[in-house]
Amino acid sequence: MTSLLVVNPNTSAEMTETIGVTALETGRRLGVEVRVICPHTGPDSIEGSFDEVVSAYWTVDCVLQVPEQFDGVLVACYGSHPAIAALREAIDVPVLGIMEASLLYALPLGAKFSIITTSPRWQPLLEESVRALGHEALCASVRSTGLAVLDLERLPPEQVRSRLLAEAMLAVERDGAEVIVLGCAGMTGLHTAVSSIGVPVVDPVVAGVALVAALAQTGARTSKHNRFRRVDRRAIEHLPPGIARAYQHARA
Amino acid sequence: MTSLLVVNPNTSAEMTETIGVTALETGRRLGVEVRVICPHTGPDSIEGSFDEVVSAYWTVDCVLQVPEQFDGVLVACYGSHPAIAALREAIDVPVLGIMEASLLYALPLGAKFSIITTSPRWQPLLEESVRALGHEALCASVRSTGLAVLDLERLPPEQVRSRLLAEAMLAVERDGAEVIVLGCAGMTGLHTAVSSIGVPVVDPVVAGVALVAALAQTGARTSKHNRFRRVDRRAIEHLPPGIARAYQHARA
Amino acid sequence: MTSLLVVNPNTSAEMTETIGVTALETGRRLGVEVRVICPHTGPDSIEGSFDEVVSAYWTVDCVLQVPEQFDGVLVACYGSHPAIAALREAIDVPVLGIMEASLLYALPLGAKFSIITTSPRWQPLLEESVRALGHEALCASVRSTGLAVLDLERLPPEQVRSRLLAEAMLAVERDGAEVIVLGCAGMTGLHTAVSSIGVPVVDPVVAGVALVAALAQTGARTSKHNRFRRVDRRAIEHLPPGIARAYQHARA
Amino acid sequence: MTSLLVVNPNTSAEMTETIGVTALETGRRLGVEVRVICPHTGPDSIEGSFDEVVSAYWTVDCVLQVPEQFDGVLVACYGSHPAIAALREAIDVPVLGIMEASLLYALPLGAKFSIITTSPRWQPLLEESVRALGHEALCASVRSTGLAVLDLERLPPEQVRSRLLAEAMLAVERDGAEVIVLGCAGMTGLHTAVSSIGVPVVDPVVAGVALVAALAQTGARTSKHNRFRRVDRRAIEHLPPGIARAYQHARA
Amino acid sequence: MTSLLVVNPNTSAEMTETIGVTALETGRRLGVEVRVICPHTGPDSIEGSFDEVVSAYWTVDCVLQVPEQFDGVLVACYGSHPAIAALREAIDVPVLGIMEASLLYALPLGAKFSIITTSPRWQPLLEESVRALGHEALCASVRSTGLAVLDLERLPPEQVRSRLLAEAMLAVERDGAEVIVLGCAGMTGLHTAVSSIGVPVVDPVVAGVALVAALAQTGARTSKHNRFRRVDRRAIEHLPPGIARAYQHARA
Amino acid sequence: MTSLLVVNPNTSAEMTETIGVTALETGRRLGVEVRVICPHTGPDSIEGSFDEVVSAYWTVDCVLQVPEQFDGVLVACYGSHPAIAALREAIDVPVLGIMEASLLYALPLGAKFSIITTSPRWQPLLEESVRALGHEALCASVRSTGLAVLDLERLPPEQVRSRLLAEAMLAVERDGAEVIVLGCAGMTGLHTAVSSIGVPVVDPVVAGVALVAALAQTGARTSKHNRFRRVDRRAIEHLPPGIARAYQHARA
Repeated sequence: MTSLLVVNPNTSAEMTETIGVTALETGRRLGVEVRVICPHTGPDSIEGSFDEVVSAYWTVDCVLQVPEQFDGVLVACYGSHPAIAALREAIDVPVLGIMEASLLYALPLGAKFSIITTSPRWQPLLEESVRALGHEALCASVRSTGLAVLDLERLPPEQVRSRLLAEAMLAVERDGAEVIVLGCAGMTGLHTAVSSIGVPVVDPVVAGVALVAALAQTGARTSKHNRFRRVDRRAIEHLPPGIARAYQHARA
Repeated sequence: MTSLLVVNPNTSAEMTETIGVTALETGRRLGVEVRVICPHTGPDSIEGSFDEVVSAYWTVDCVLQVPEQFDGVLVACYGSHPAIAALREAIDVPVLGIMEASLLYALPLGAKFSIITTSPRWQPLLEESVRALGHEALCASVRSTGLAVLDLERLPPEQVRSRLLAEAMLAVERDGAEVIVLGCAGMTGLHTAVSSIGVPVVDPVVAGVALVAALAQTGARTSKHNRFRRVDRRAIEHLPPGIARAYQHARA
Repeated sequence: MTSLLVVNPNTSAEMTETIGVTALETGRRLGVEVRVICPHTGPDSIEGSFDEVVSAYWTVDCVLQVPEQFDGVLVACYGSHPAIAALREAIDVPVLGIMEASLLYALPLGAKFSIITTSPRWQPLLEESVRALGHEALCASVRSTGLAVLDLERLPPEQVRSRLLAEAMLAVERDGAEVIVLGCAGMTGLHTAVSSIGVPVVDPVVAGVALVAALAQTGARTSKHNRFRRVDRRAIEHLPPGIARAYQHARA
Repeated sequence: MTSLLVVNPNTSAEMTETIGVTALETGRRLGVEVRVICPHTGPDSIEGSFDEVVSAYWTVDCVLQVPEQFDGVLVACYGSHPAIAALREAIDVPVLGIMEASLLYALPLGAKFSIITTSPRWQPLLEESVRALGHEALCASVRSTGLAVLDLERLPPEQVRSRLLAEAMLAVERDGAEVIVLGCAGMTGLHTAVSSIGVPVVDPVVAGVALVAALAQTGARTSKHNRFRRVDRRAIEHLPPGIARAYQHARA
Repeated sequence: MTSLLVVNPNTSAEMTETIGVTALETGRRLGVEVRVICPHTGPDSIEGSFDEVVSAYWTVDCVLQVPEQFDGVLVACYGSHPAIAALREAIDVPVLGIMEASLLYALPLGAKFSIITTSPRWQPLLEESVRALGHEALCASVRSTGLAVLDLERLPPEQVRSRLLAEAMLAVERDGAEVIVLGCAGMTGLHTAVSSIGVPVVDPVVAGVALVAALAQTGARTSKHNRFRRVDRRAIEHLPPGIARAYQHARA
Repeated sequence: MTSLLVVNPNTSAEMTETIGVTALETGRRLGVEVRVICPHTGPDSIEGSFDEVVSAYWTVDCVLQVPEQFDGVLVACYGSHPAIAALREAIDVPVLGIMEASLLYALPLGAKFSIITTSPRWQPLLEESVRALGHEALCASVRSTGLAVLDLERLPPEQVRSRLLAEAMLAVERDGAEVIVLGCAGMTGLHTAVSSIGVPVVDPVVAGVALVAALAQTGARTSKHNRFRRVDRRAIEHLPPGIARAYQHARA
């Protein structure tokens, strides 16, 4: 049976659990096994590039410590998290981030999509990522709700939902969005909050599990030609066990 | 159980069978039902925009005559076939073309992809489609093998394979491709011809079934906001039954 | 004397007549003969991709049934109507759509243009076409009046004019348009409705006749290298006479 | 009768005459009057931006000294010559450069065009202009023949023709061009040199006269909103008569 | 000691002095010598392409009359002034315009920049320049204050400052600008007017002197390969002394 | 006196020394103080995204442990190293990478630049970075020498130089480059190897020190609006001292 690993790159137990609920439910619908992990060290939410650097180090390390085999990996932080490219070099099975997956999922469903994100700092970051992924032509907008990542867990649900809905409506009415993408792992499960506006709403964890599963079930492998060539062998001290092992076991 | 409809928009029985072999095998791996059809009238291969116009008319008609329910549709002609957008308006479940699916499948597997197509006339047509789909930034090249679509069925297999391999090697070595996409429905099953170059090879029918399945199994629906709004009700005479029914049953 | 064929791809007699008034008047100013036709079957207005597929089939057929020689063809539906590329393959003289012509006409007249279209569904469709034609850098906006195509004939003229004017003013004041393009064949003759805003207004039928005439009078021919290579010979049954003849008379 | 002014921005009598032969012949075919002029001072060929600055000053001046009325102006230097935008501000009738006109003419004739220019210095300059005009998506290449502008008049015709043909063939075979555009006013009349390759060849003076005529005959005017707003009134000494008059007669 | 020449391309003594105050102060901070000049003929402010053509002629001439050596040149008109490219051909040391310099300076300081310009006519002109310089992806907006260039000197300072501040705030709040660039030489010294909005404000004369100095102090030279190849030798009468000398002393 | 910090993100003492020689010499020419450091842990060369993740963690940490004040930071790894954005959040003075600096330096010197890099894996990585920095329109090519980063120190100098020269010549002759950029910190000092081709060669460490100095000397600060907002306060255990301090001293 196809087996997927989902890694939440922050250390928040609540968010890992929230992600896990959606991921496991989606796995059941698709007939694939899903395991969800998170690192033990690092920020408990990722609010910018500094957090990404710290988080990427420990996320890569924790994935590379998992002893079992799996057929695909999903990095459940919304954005171009540095762990994604690093893991594509370190292992052979497909590795996707939930942002990339959500956009691939949204593209066939309408002419343009908008991403609804959390704090205003994520707006330029996600615009950068949209461009890096090559999807700027079909992106209607990236809109911020003004909420922090952890507000999604801590604020009254009704307040979270109304902020999401307000921005989604502006995306449809002003920006020409025909599909709404929830732009944060912590928003998983909240698509019903937005469904009243009458356009498809993409849950990034659902999209992520569905697309990694599609690739994994049909035998896809990451290209090792140039961009994601395997890690070079190195002897470096003072590294955590997963990273250390990746360097030691690399080709000489 | 999730059920998919695959339509080959040309009338060639051989090509429909070739597509069917891959589509059914992929369906089995994913646990979804797949049915493959083709129109009874129209060109037996699609070699440009004129053929597309004739084919689209009869393809849309034949899909809209299928009495059973299905959860997703795959249009198995490589390119921006006009039937894709027309069907997105006529029905609610996800509709993908195999070109779009193959590119969504290829994007996470390497930095850039190249498409290997048949005759030189498809090169500018597919370049247009790559731009229409918004993927030009990550497309290394579209390369023609110089073969006609039906040559894929009629020429000695070794000759077809060596032409494919030759262009795929140029795509990797000169154009910087890290993933090769087979750019014709008739090339399905030929990925082994190219696999010796050591980069992932995307079979468009495999990719198409996998992605429509992923969308269908997780409940995706086409956005009916603006671009793919439902067909308007019209009373028009002299139309074939599938098209006529779509106009009659549309909202007033 | 140079002779042009204008085809209205929908079956509306009123719209064909409206188009004819402008086309013939423009022909007189330029010293070229103009003939206007429309298909006998298909939708009486084109409101999306489904209508385009049905319309393209009958439009191509009716053009290919015209027995006389002409020196250029204008397809009078605003958008990337599939009949345009199909006819470029089937015949040698220049074939333009009124959208393409209107943008080529507008480009030298100001820094940026905006297109005023009918229903909201045309907004994403025309944005796609602007990108397909390669003019996105100089397009200030595509704006919808919220009217249906046939509203242009049926609503009180004053209401139509005031909707056009309102959107044109927003295009100039908010979007930076310096030229307004009327984005529907049915809007021909309405440029005076918008002229009060003080920027050039492009009537797409005027632009279409003027540009096809300019190409035809100076001997231009469609390139038959790759993209618009001639149609392949095919023996297909059950096709209408124009399409059937094109396949029969094609090179073997 | 519609009357056009063609200005050759360099002072070469031979090139002015060469341009005149094509322009007058094209005018006759279109039924418009054409007058051809050139400035009395400035470089006798334009080989870069320094020459453009000197040439633009005297070209604008000589156009603004013409006492009669005309309905459109063609600037017969291939490139984004600064006189084009300056004249658009100074007068109301349409002003086109032959580069812009040749590309608008080429676009409907094939999927992609290539420009064949003279010296290698024009290659980056014309690439810049293609981007400035917003046509980079459909430009297959800009290729240099290695000839100087005046070589076109002075070298043995056979040598000029064979250099043009060689680059045009590379444009078609390697770059995917389907239409060849002659990228120098001095190349006018040489399209037969290239016609053997079997794709349409655009003569920029033919295209220029045809498109200015099309705009002029249908009453087009340059937008005076923002980009090409009329010149401000100024009292400046030591200016040549045409420029001086434009400043004096401008609105206060 | 490194020595820079700053040329104000208009003839306004006040603006030349304003520019000089900033340029000399910046030179002192960087330890470079700065000399500021302006032409004796031409418009006293540059309000579009016509003024640019007249100004470029006399600006190039006055720079080429300066007898001393200098290590870099700054053209202090905001925009793609034609003198910049012309001077790059005529001399070897680096030549920058203040627009180009201000954008290179702004790029590393935030995700996106906005330019605040004077009259509405500059908005499309500067958008063209942003695209010509290749920076459109990171430009949030170009906003006009509605002021004329000379209003910056003549209106009450408080009025100028409040217009600047109002547009800068809209750039940050609506357009997503993280850095504000003052888009007119005449705005130099006004950055304090805008600093209250809490994002970096780039003074184009400061940026210009700083970047020309950085290039000059580290020995940069303009590439003479193709685009900015040296001027060809020509014998032309009736030219002003600086231009005449450049043609006479050019390589044969 | 202005004081700059240069950090080599790998742990190679030889490369740190090579970078230091150029950086200090450039600092002397500009009149600024330069200090060069490198982390104690991590890879001794950076050969892809996995190395970047490990290196970024220790690079950020070592910069944030430096007790003295400095006015600008240069990250001396060629590419979009994750430490650059992380440091822009953590500190207020300008932070540049040598890639970004080298491109800003190259842009005013010619029409297009090419980057000569080390191993083939860097080619797609640097193409991604060129696009992320928004400079793709003016990038002629990224070319790989086929050398590993440490080959630059270990191979016979003549071999390194001849590989650099060979690729630089192809960049100029085939790709249209007018400026060559050395695309690796380890190439600093090697510009003389390439200077024989007669176009400007940009040393990325020279460009980096010159541009950080220009920004620092004129008081530039990183925008803290959105993209590079300051790091959030967090209490996380098991972090190295520089990172830990940045989280502890952040605003609450």
